[in-house]
Parts: sequence; structure tokens; C-alpha cells
Amino acid sequence: MSGEGHDNLRRVNLRKLGERGLLDDIRRRFGGLAPASPAGIGDDAALLGTARNAWLVSTDCLIEHRHFRRDEPGWLLGRKSLAVNLSDIAAMGGRPDSFLLTLGIPDGLSSRFLDEFLGGLLSMAKENSVKLVGGDTSGSPGPLVISITILGRPGTRRPARLLARSGARPGDGIYVSGPLGGSAAGRAILDRGWRLRMDRARRRVVAVSSPPSARLAGADRRRVCTRAAEAVRSHLDPVPRLELGRRLLERKIASSAMDLSDGVSTDLRRLAEASDVGARLLAPAIPIADSARALAPFVDAEPLGLALHGGEDYELLFTVPPSSESRLIDLDVTFIGRVTPRRGGLSLVDGSGGGSRLEPLGHDHFAAR
Amino acid sequence: MSGEGHDNLRRVNLRKLGERGLLDDIRRRFGGLAPASPAGIGDDAALLGTARNAWLVSTDCLIEHRHFRRDEPGWLLGRKSLAVNLSDIAAMGGRPDSFLLTLGIPDGLSSRFLDEFLGGLLSMAKENSVKLVGGDTSGSPGPLVISITILGRPGTRRPARLLARSGARPGDGIYVSGPLGGSAAGRAILDRGWRLRMDRARRRVVAVSSPPSARLAGADRRRVCTRAAEAVRSHLDPVPRLELGRRLLERKIASSAMDLSDGVSTDLRRLAEASDVGARLLAPAIPIADSARALAPFVDAEPLGLALHGGEDYELLFTVPPSSESRLIDLDVTFIGRVTPRRGGLSLVDGSGGGSRLEPLGHDHFAAR
Repeated sequence: MSGEGHDNLRRVNLRKLGERGLLDDIRRRFGGLAPASPAGIGDDAALLGTARNAWLVSTDCLIEHRHFRRDEPGWLLGRKSLAVNLSDIAAMGGRPDSFLLTLGIPDGLSSRFLDEFLGGLLSMAKENSVKLVGGDTSGSPGPLVISITILGRPGTRRPARLLARSGARPGDGIYVSGPLGGSAAGRAILDRGWRLRMDRARRRVVAVSSPPSARLAGADRRRVCTRAAEAVRSHLDPVPRLELGRRLLERKIASSAMDLSDGVSTDLRRLAEASDVGARLLAPAIPIADSARALAPFVDAEPLGLALHGGEDYELLFTVPPSSESRLIDLDVTFIGRVTPRRGGLSLVDGSGGGSRLEPLGHDHFAAR
Repeated sequence: MSGEGHDNLRRVNLRKLGERGLLDDIRRRFGGLAPASPAGIGDDAALLGTARNAWLVSTDCLIEHRHFRRDEPGWLLGRKSLAVNLSDIAAMGGRPDSFLLTLGIPDGLSSRFLDEFLGGLLSMAKENSVKLVGGDTSGSPGPLVISITILGRPGTRRPARLLARSGARPGDGIYVSGPLGGSAAGRAILDRGWRLRMDRARRRVVAVSSPPSARLAGADRRRVCTRAAEAVRSHLDPVPRLELGRRLLERKIASSAMDLSDGVSTDLRRLAEASDVGARLLAPAIPIADSARALAPFVDAEPLGLALHGGEDYELLFTVPPSSESRLIDLDVTFIGRVTPRRGGLSLVDGSGGGSRLEPLGHDHFAAR
């Protein structure tokens, strides 16, 4: 808050200050109390305990109207609430163990929605063998609030090692674990009135239909709506990359890693700052999701923009020293650029070799949905 | 949700179902995944890890309009947000270690309020040597949301022992660590327009003034307002009983314990159910806070009702086997009743020896503030 002053009449302009400004302020204030661990405030998860007996802990909160809408399927919201937390453990190469669930429940929430939410949450918990060990519940005067804290163990135990954001070095290759932009395209079409249809048990998106304003018909319509269903599935039911995170750690492949929650342009900047390096991304190498390509014209966006700035992909972003890049051969990952010295900043190189500055236009948690 | 059915048109009536109904439902659904530990869902904190290397973890959420109002002092809200979590660790006899902070921040929150909130939080963290290790921040479409997860270690390490709710046996004495009802009286007068005055640094309640409707003047007014300031302080700035919790554990005095967040009548029922026992409280033995006695006439309540049902005292409620009661001699605690077999239920014995059923009229988290 340093730039905001203490004037009673001033208001925190969080859209201007942004999440990063607030986190910087909190980190500065509480710095004297922060742990001398490799993973502290700002990494995907914090490391607690001793080297021989370490725990990872992380927390992620979903608030209605900011992160989801209540007309989205409760089952998938339950799955996603836990998946985004599992993704933080994946980014550290850890093994999830257990979680705590906090719910702020508005009056009038339908019992069906709550039933489905808990069912979906349980399905994601079972798939990943994580135990519910506690939590808190209360009423909420407005939005449904879902806050989960996840606990895990380092992926290797003796010694306890971790993936962190701070290990990238100039020359390292930059990789992502899957196509990008599909989640953002899915969110954008839902916001524009495209309708999803669930299966009978309301657990899976089986189809998405376009609104009349999209002016689609015949084969075009079928093709686009197939991609629309893919996009909505990647937005509402992301898959945490736990297996990949553990492999990157166990095989000592990655020099740094994080998960992509807010878009490559924003998240890569965080990784670069934590590592005190720059980065050069190759635009033609960015793996744009087919769904993002197909839907971009309907959401006033460029496919590359969706992939770079869209957010909520929950893929892993990681760096690999040149000497280890050959060991990626049996992993389904994509090279997207290379780490540079810090003075290079973050740049994007297009197909003709021309470069431009990569601006962090990804998701800010204080922007309205 | 078993009694609520799956009808799309039915709504969860959380005020009817209550927190307990929801927790029972969640526990049943997730039961297969719950840990085989002495402290699981429903205790004040969960126990993780091995006996030689155990962690306590707990989470508590404060939501504006339900748990606090934004016209209350930010500094004290910061302190209380952490204090209620520390109280959960105290109830287990543990040592707090670190915490995660999640904030959902509404547009237009004043920078001064946020500054004060973080300052107060930091002061409570320093006083208890707990480190901030992570968290999450986002915007909120309405209320300010504060969710904290606290991590601690068992108070004794080899072997790791804990206080839990489940150890009370018939014949054990029932004790509380301090006077009750002050916090509830403080909340009630704030709700009725009594005004507090802070010191210049806005860190301490120095005085509370009564509204004209209280019709107070002269010496009466001074006496009541002194008690009002005490009550408001106990409501806005509770003290977690960490030292007492550790002593009860280390000296092997208590057979069970919990912290009083929702009122003795509600919390004792939880302890009795966890221990499969009943309890008989002696009404004349209940330590009613002086402030609750002085303010009861102004908040349409009986002093004993405030003490039994008021909630948010954050004192410890614990039981002690008869053979250990003599070891309480140097602890500032109060005997309030005795554990009975389960079939006795929960009863309240008055001064003349007459008994009545003790109804759980304490705070329900789904009731509006």
C-alpha cells in the first residue's frame, strides 16, 4: 500500500494496484516472519518442516461472480475447486495428501447444487487419493465462497526436493505441458451466452450450442460447437498435471516450474522475476488449443492472445537446462522459448524474427468476471 | 443433505439444517477418505503426519456481515482473524507455527482499513511467533472475506500427544478458563448503536458510549460504560489460551478440551457427543463476565443466557478426571459441572437443586449477524 498513503478518504484501487502490488506489500510487512525455506510467499506452495519431514501447503479461493457463476454445473465446480489446488502441488513436483474445505454459503443455495458440488469434489479427491481432514462453514451474505487449503509431501523424500519458480538460468529452454487458450475461450463463450448441455447425471459437458448472434449453421456450426464443448470442458474441468510435475522432479529435468493459472504472459513474468532472468518466447511455437483457434472470431480475440493471456489453463510452465533437454523425449511437452539474462526482459519473437515486448496482460484477480 | 432430497426446486434451508447438519453430511460423504487419526473432521484441528513428526492444521473464515462489520476497527479485525485460529491450536494443546492468509477484497475497501487490518494481523503473528507462509488474494463482488489456515505442532513431541474432544468420561469435572458472556454482550451493544472510541493509533478501544435510548446518566452511565468497554474489548480482541492449553496437555491434566467459539450450551454438546457422554452444569458456578451482568438489561438478555449461549468467548472448555482435579490448583480456571453417562443428556442445575435440559442455543454459523 506504499503508494496509496494513509488518507482516510483514499480508497484502495485494487484494479490499479493489482494482486502483485498487494502481495508485494504483504510480503514486505511480514518479511521478518517469513520462513527461510526455498519456497515461501509467492511460490505455488510453501514448504514447512525439516528436510527429512517436509510438507507442502497451499491455498486457493474461488468466489462466485469472480471465479465462477452459479449457473455453471455444481459437479464440475466441486472438481475444479480441488483441481486448482492440486495444480499448485503439481507445480512443486509434490504428492497431494489432504485438504481442508471452507464454505461460505448464501441463503437460498439449492440443495441440488450443494449436493452436486460435494459429489464433484469427492470424485476429484478420490481420483487423487487426498483426504478431507477439516474445514469451516458459515453463511455468506452474498456470494458462494469456496476456499481450499491443500497439504502435500515433496515428490522426493530423501532428500526432500522441490520444483520452484526461482531456478531458471539463461540458456534454459522454456516448455509448457499442453495447448493453451482453450480455457479462456471456454469462459468467453459462456459469458457470451453459449449454452452447455450436461449428461443425465450432470457430471460431464456433452455439448455446447451457439447463440443466434454467432450466425452459425450446418457443418460450420457442428465444427465450431465441437470445439466449443472442448473449450468449456477445459475451462470447467481442468486436469492437474501431478504426474508430469513428479517426473520433472524425480528425473531432475526442470530447473524451475509453476502452474499456469493467470496466462503465460503474466505467469512467465513471475517465474522470470523469481529467477532474476529474462525470457524470449517464440510466437509460432506457442501451442494454441484447437478450440481457441476455432472460437477466437466469436469472442473478439486473436488465437495467440487467448493462448498468451487467457489464463486458467492449469498446464505446467517449466524451464530445462540445455544439458537435460534431450531427456524430455518421452514427455508430451512443447518448447516455447528460451531463458535470457534479466536485462533482456520478456520478449515475443514472431515468425519473421521480429521481436516485441511481452506485456503481462493475463488474468488479474481483482478484475471483475 | 439426506433430509433435503434432490428436488431441483427445494432449497437448502441452512438455518434449519444448521452447521451441524451440513458437517454431518460432509463427514458421511467423505468418511471413507478421512484419516485414521485421533483428530479428524469436527475436532478443533486435524492431525497430520506420523507420531514422531505430526502437524496440526485448522482453518477459520470470517465473512463481513456474518462475523464482523466493516465499521469495526481494522486493526482489531486483523488480530481477531488470527486469534480465532490460534484458539483452535490452543484447544489441542498445540504450538502454532505458521499460517496462510486468503483475502477476498471488495471494490472500494479503504486503504486505511486494509493497512490497519494487516498491521493488526502482524501484531498478533509476532506476539505468537507465527510466520505467514502463503495465501491467496482476489476481488470479491460483495463482502470482505478473510480465511486463515493455521499450522502448528503438538505441544508434546515424543510421543506426540494432543487434547481432543473425545476423552471425557463420566465423573470428570468440567472447567472453563475464564468468565463468559462478555463477548456476546459486546457484540450486542455494538449492534444496538453503542459507539466505541479508539486511541489515536486506532489499536485499542479506550471507551464506549451509550446511545440516548439506554437512558443512562451520571455515575450509572460511567459504571455501565466502563463495563461496555470491557465487553467490546473481549468481543473485538479475544486472547487465545495457548499457554493454558499447553499446560493442560503437558501436565496430563485434561481428559478432553475444545475452545468456546459458539457458546457453552452448543460447544459442550459437541464435546459430549464426541466423548459419548452427558453433562450436568451448575448454573450458580458459571462464571458470568461482569460486563455481561452490567449490560444484560440493555440487550434484552439474562446474564446467564449471555454466558451459556453467547459465543465467541474463545476460552477453553475442558474436562478433568477426579484424580487430577487437585493439580489445577495454580491454574486460573473455574469448575462449572460434571460429566455424566450419556443417558443423562445435558442438564443445567439451578441454585435450588432443580434441573432442566440444557438446550444448544449458541451461535449457529448460518444465522445472520
